[in-house]
Amino acid sequence: MGAIPIPHEQWAQVIEKDGELSFKKIPVPKPAPDQVLVQIRYSGVCHTDLHALKNDWPLPRKTPVVGGHEGAGIVVAKGPLVTSVNIGDAVGIKWLNSSCMVCTYCMKGDEPLCPHAELSGYTVDGSFQQYALANALHCARIPEGTDLAAIAPVLCAGLTVYKGLKESGARPGELVAIVGAGGGLGSIAIQYAKAMGMHVIAIDGGMEKGEACKKLGAESYVDFMSSKDLIEEVKRVSDGEGPHAVLLLAPQEKPFQQATSYVRSKGVVVCIGLPAGARVSMPVFDTVVRMITVKGSYVGNREDTQEAIDFFSRGMIHAPIKIVGLSEVGKVFEMMEQNKIVGRYVLDMSR
Amino acid sequence: MGAIPIPHEQWAQVIEKDGELSFKKIPVPKPAPDQVLVQIRYSGVCHTDLHALKNDWPLPRKTPVVGGHEGAGIVVAKGPLVTSVNIGDAVGIKWLNSSCMVCTYCMKGDEPLCPHAELSGYTVDGSFQQYALANALHCARIPEGTDLAAIAPVLCAGLTVYKGLKESGARPGELVAIVGAGGGLGSIAIQYAKAMGMHVIAIDGGMEKGEACKKLGAESYVDFMSSKDLIEEVKRVSDGEGPHAVLLLAPQEKPFQQATSYVRSKGVVVCIGLPAGARVSMPVFDTVVRMITVKGSYVGNREDTQEAIDFFSRGMIHAPIKIVGLSEVGKVFEMMEQNKIVGRYVLDMSR
Amino acid sequence: MGAIPIPHEQWAQVIEKDGELSFKKIPVPKPAPDQVLVQIRYSGVCHTDLHALKNDWPLPRKTPVVGGHEGAGIVVAKGPLVTSVNIGDAVGIKWLNSSCMVCTYCMKGDEPLCPHAELSGYTVDGSFQQYALANALHCARIPEGTDLAAIAPVLCAGLTVYKGLKESGARPGELVAIVGAGGGLGSIAIQYAKAMGMHVIAIDGGMEKGEACKKLGAESYVDFMSSKDLIEEVKRVSDGEGPHAVLLLAPQEKPFQQATSYVRSKGVVVCIGLPAGARVSMPVFDTVVRMITVKGSYVGNREDTQEAIDFFSRGMIHAPIKIVGLSEVGKVFEMMEQNKIVGRYVLDMSR
Amino acid sequence: MGAIPIPHEQWAQVIEKDGELSFKKIPVPKPAPDQVLVQIRYSGVCHTDLHALKNDWPLPRKTPVVGGHEGAGIVVAKGPLVTSVNIGDAVGIKWLNSSCMVCTYCMKGDEPLCPHAELSGYTVDGSFQQYALANALHCARIPEGTDLAAIAPVLCAGLTVYKGLKESGARPGELVAIVGAGGGLGSIAIQYAKAMGMHVIAIDGGMEKGEACKKLGAESYVDFMSSKDLIEEVKRVSDGEGPHAVLLLAPQEKPFQQATSYVRSKGVVVCIGLPAGARVSMPVFDTVVRMITVKGSYVGNREDTQEAIDFFSRGMIHAPIKIVGLSEVGKVFEMMEQNKIVGRYVLDMSR
Repeated sequence: MGAIPIPHEQWAQVIEKDGELSFKKIPVPKPAPDQVLVQIRYSGVCHTDLHALKNDWPLPRKTPVVGGHEGAGIVVAKGPLVTSVNIGDAVGIKWLNSSCMVCTYCMKGDEPLCPHAELSGYTVDGSFQQYALANALHCARIPEGTDLAAIAPVLCAGLTVYKGLKESGARPGELVAIVGAGGGLGSIAIQYAKAMGMHVIAIDGGMEKGEACKKLGAESYVDFMSSKDLIEEVKRVSDGEGPHAVLLLAPQEKPFQQATSYVRSKGVVVCIGLPAGARVSMPVFDTVVRMITVKGSYVGNREDTQEAIDFFSRGMIHAPIKIVGLSEVGKVFEMMEQNKIVGRYVLDMSR
Repeated sequence: MGAIPIPHEQWAQVIEKDGELSFKKIPVPKPAPDQVLVQIRYSGVCHTDLHALKNDWPLPRKTPVVGGHEGAGIVVAKGPLVTSVNIGDAVGIKWLNSSCMVCTYCMKGDEPLCPHAELSGYTVDGSFQQYALANALHCARIPEGTDLAAIAPVLCAGLTVYKGLKESGARPGELVAIVGAGGGLGSIAIQYAKAMGMHVIAIDGGMEKGEACKKLGAESYVDFMSSKDLIEEVKRVSDGEGPHAVLLLAPQEKPFQQATSYVRSKGVVVCIGLPAGARVSMPVFDTVVRMITVKGSYVGNREDTQEAIDFFSRGMIHAPIKIVGLSEVGKVFEMMEQNKIVGRYVLDMSR
Repeated sequence: MGAIPIPHEQWAQVIEKDGELSFKKIPVPKPAPDQVLVQIRYSGVCHTDLHALKNDWPLPRKTPVVGGHEGAGIVVAKGPLVTSVNIGDAVGIKWLNSSCMVCTYCMKGDEPLCPHAELSGYTVDGSFQQYALANALHCARIPEGTDLAAIAPVLCAGLTVYKGLKESGARPGELVAIVGAGGGLGSIAIQYAKAMGMHVIAIDGGMEKGEACKKLGAESYVDFMSSKDLIEEVKRVSDGEGPHAVLLLAPQEKPFQQATSYVRSKGVVVCIGLPAGARVSMPVFDTVVRMITVKGSYVGNREDTQEAIDFFSRGMIHAPIKIVGLSEVGKVFEMMEQNKIVGRYVLDMSR
Repeated sequence: MGAIPIPHEQWAQVIEKDGELSFKKIPVPKPAPDQVLVQIRYSGVCHTDLHALKNDWPLPRKTPVVGGHEGAGIVVAKGPLVTSVNIGDAVGIKWLNSSCMVCTYCMKGDEPLCPHAELSGYTVDGSFQQYALANALHCARIPEGTDLAAIAPVLCAGLTVYKGLKESGARPGELVAIVGAGGGLGSIAIQYAKAMGMHVIAIDGGMEKGEACKKLGAESYVDFMSSKDLIEEVKRVSDGEGPHAVLLLAPQEKPFQQATSYVRSKGVVVCIGLPAGARVSMPVFDTVVRMITVKGSYVGNREDTQEAIDFFSRGMIHAPIKIVGLSEVGKVFEMMEQNKIVGRYVLDMSR
């Protein structure tokens, strides 16, 4: 593939101060020897981007910073050491922009735990710009011909729930309860769980969400708004024993406490959602005699990323998206704050 | 082996009312078709026996009941269906007296989670008597020639810590912190961890315990009484990253909170000790981004039991014991309440 | 459920001499204390039954013997120790009739490896009779309302391929090649693999089989009859790297040699089919530097059985069956010898 | 650390033609941006170096090439992208010099299976020179103060057997048979197995080797020269059931056939040694009904390397070495061809 002309300036959404976004022109960056420059075509907007904007997490963020970590685009330039990706290839920019590749965590494939990890849209500039830098070893490989708008949410939302399902240890044929199944993460999680051969108990509030969950493949639905005894009801629809695993996607604290009660003995509760300041707590006695496991799952590593993409590429994952222009990200954040978003917003970088 | 004469009456320590022990003569029971009758020679005394006496656990206990669940003895009679054990064989009576063998838990080898499990010295009569009943599938197989007094504590204390170490997922060469390392469970846990190829960071209070831990093979010792910053100190002696796993044997609540702070990212905290009414609690954010696991480990299954015994038989485990007569169990409980016990008391059934 | 009248005599197909079947009346047996008596309604006919008839395996068979090990029926009587099954329950008789439950293999859930295992239709009388004995711990639990003819093949064919897929270690999203995919075992294996989230490369001979495999869910089909280079073709349809696992169901020797060539580096080849006298052989150099695994998988244990049934009960497995009377088993064996069977023959015990 | 003066020329042992070594002066190479230049202090000599010299493996070798892949030395220069290693650090050069870090194998930590892997002393120049290049992500990290001569054999021999033991799946407390236990790899394997909590059955020929094996910690020794029935004897010393795993280090074909006979049902036979042209072969029937696994294990990945070094650093591994000058490598190869080597030869680069 021949050289692709690259402009000197580009449009970007820049956080110049906590809580303040500025849509403006900034220089197009140049790749380091081990980096690629990606012409972002589409970028998903994630709840984490809102936390980045507000800077309300116990994790230092750089300022100014270009947010965004669900970017899908085309490689337009690369550093001299990069041999594994070519100009013209479709790649994805995900939360984990790079890691040292050589610490005790990276060596085990736990790159997200690397103490030197750089995070897109948080410690380095992310995908809310037309041209973004990515580390060549870390950028996601996207198969030729992929719909780049549709895959954007897979790069963070999809990857995160897929990783959580892997971490749950649930095997094909086992029962997984998904708490917050009707939300953005949840609706993707149902599809991954099904694709992985698990049977899904969807938990959320309201009849409308229940119907949506069942349409996506959930075997049963428990409505926390109408249920008289959530714990008993979840057990009842899970062979009377409770699900083998629980995925906690909901941004509230209460479900964390309930999950350890209804999960099956020797079951696994996976925490993924990050309610601000929340704690998970359970009685030691019950934890011990029922041999319950509670664990946290963060984002996936590079292998998980390619696997999550592969499920998408085989047509097993459909994240409902709405496309708006890059200039409109502020409005998306507003709706997010008001809990008005159903599905995922994806930004079109060309407008 | 010919028939062994069995008396009609025997001495036993009977809990006739919560908190009240009676040392008296009771009938010798007869084995059901799938049971063996064991002439108990020695029985360890465990903290759980004290809970059984007081009936202060959220788990119903039968009354009256003969306590005890670390009994080592000789099979003197057996039911007609028993083919796997012979009269004259040495066997052990452990906490799990029997289980249904066919529920979803038993099928997976998680017999301790069986809803139909019977517990020695709790829901069925245990080993604080001269002749006790055991289920032939569940009684521990003890190799010929074993010192029955020395092995008694392995049947519960040893098994419990061995199981916890297995559940920790720590591999040979990894670092395991043992909280409460200087106590009865802890001193055995250090030895099992070493025999399993792990490196031990012992945590407890006081210089004397520290010396004892190091003598047993701990690589380092952290004294919570003198340490200025326990969390930092544990990390420092663990490559700066923290241990791969933590075994919580201490009957206090505070160590549960600390462990999730100093355990390595993607590490595992195993709860074993049962401080009354305690809760384990941790911040969701840290649990997720560090991918921490907290899990409970109860007693081992039949496979674990034979493995724990095998380590003992190969001379790798030495539990320091003091032998007193069956008649003296009340005194042992008194010392236990006053935290005056170092090592394990074992009852000699002949006096 | 009240008592069910049980006759004193019944019809059975008895092997009285190697190779000779006799259809005759024999007494109805009585259950031992730990057994149930099952009124067999339907029984599948398996290739193994033909080996039993001929007595051509290196495994001693009793004589006379009633063959059959895919029996589905109703419990009509039980021994006094049986509490886990009730009269009126639907159960299955599988290859593994009983095991000691207490040897080193049984303790780990590897009951099929128990040296004291009894095999239905081989070392004890099997399901080619109207009333058969089963061990209460080992008989398969069949959910109420199940079609007993349709489930019969799951009890051996289904279980065997499901176990093989588990043993392959292939995870959801990975590629599994099934050799002999168009045959009786193969067509069930495709369905289990899909239900477990794997992607199937079907390998067999002829266009007709290819179409059948694709209809059942295979992602691609490689025809060994028309392929010019089987090894290259399998790799080509497997990302160029080869499948993660291979299931060898074909009763020929050649595929054993090919599989180690096309399986992906670090892949697993699972041997299931039992070509008489066959050997598996591979070059040490390639095995080492590509880290290939070759392993055998026998029948499933009790847990696997319930899992295999659960997939069937959820409607994910459809074994094509043809029902004939018990009296006609001889004709089924004839067709089997002539390789004329497509799908599975199931015997109706009432005729 | 300040700059270390680096000469322009150095001494090296160069294979200029198959089978011909030349000891001569060659230029000191310069590190690429992601490489380090290592002043080799000591290098082990491995059987693989002899294969490289002869070029008799089915794997293309470059010509001319500097052999050697067990080099221990000090970093004296590094490329501009290298941040994880500093000048003055001790590092090791191992068989796997580099890999692409981004293929499907590298992503899983199976770097030795990378199709783009470079092999020290085979496809790139190795450690039989005074200054060698290493990839910064792949070179082994050696703790400060380590005896660089003593650790040299750990970098290939140690790593290889450690990896094999991990791949065997044997857990602490299980029995591992080591075939060729008295040789160079074997004597190290015994020590790793012990350090990992396994019990070792050493298999080799002759009383002298038997004594050496027992001194190193083997629990029992089976002498193939004097044993009347090797298979029965191995089973007898392994609880009558056979070992859980077998490590095949011997460079002959016969032990490959025996191992599948004496390994325990569901046991694992790991092939490591590479007898020229050998095949491993076993009967399908036995493989299936005993559920035997045969697998190949190549060299370890980067994580395995650091773990193998860690066992050494804790004083648990002592490889008996003899130190000679770099100029004498030809003599070492001669002895190797005559099977006269006991222990490991290590070259001192200063002479």
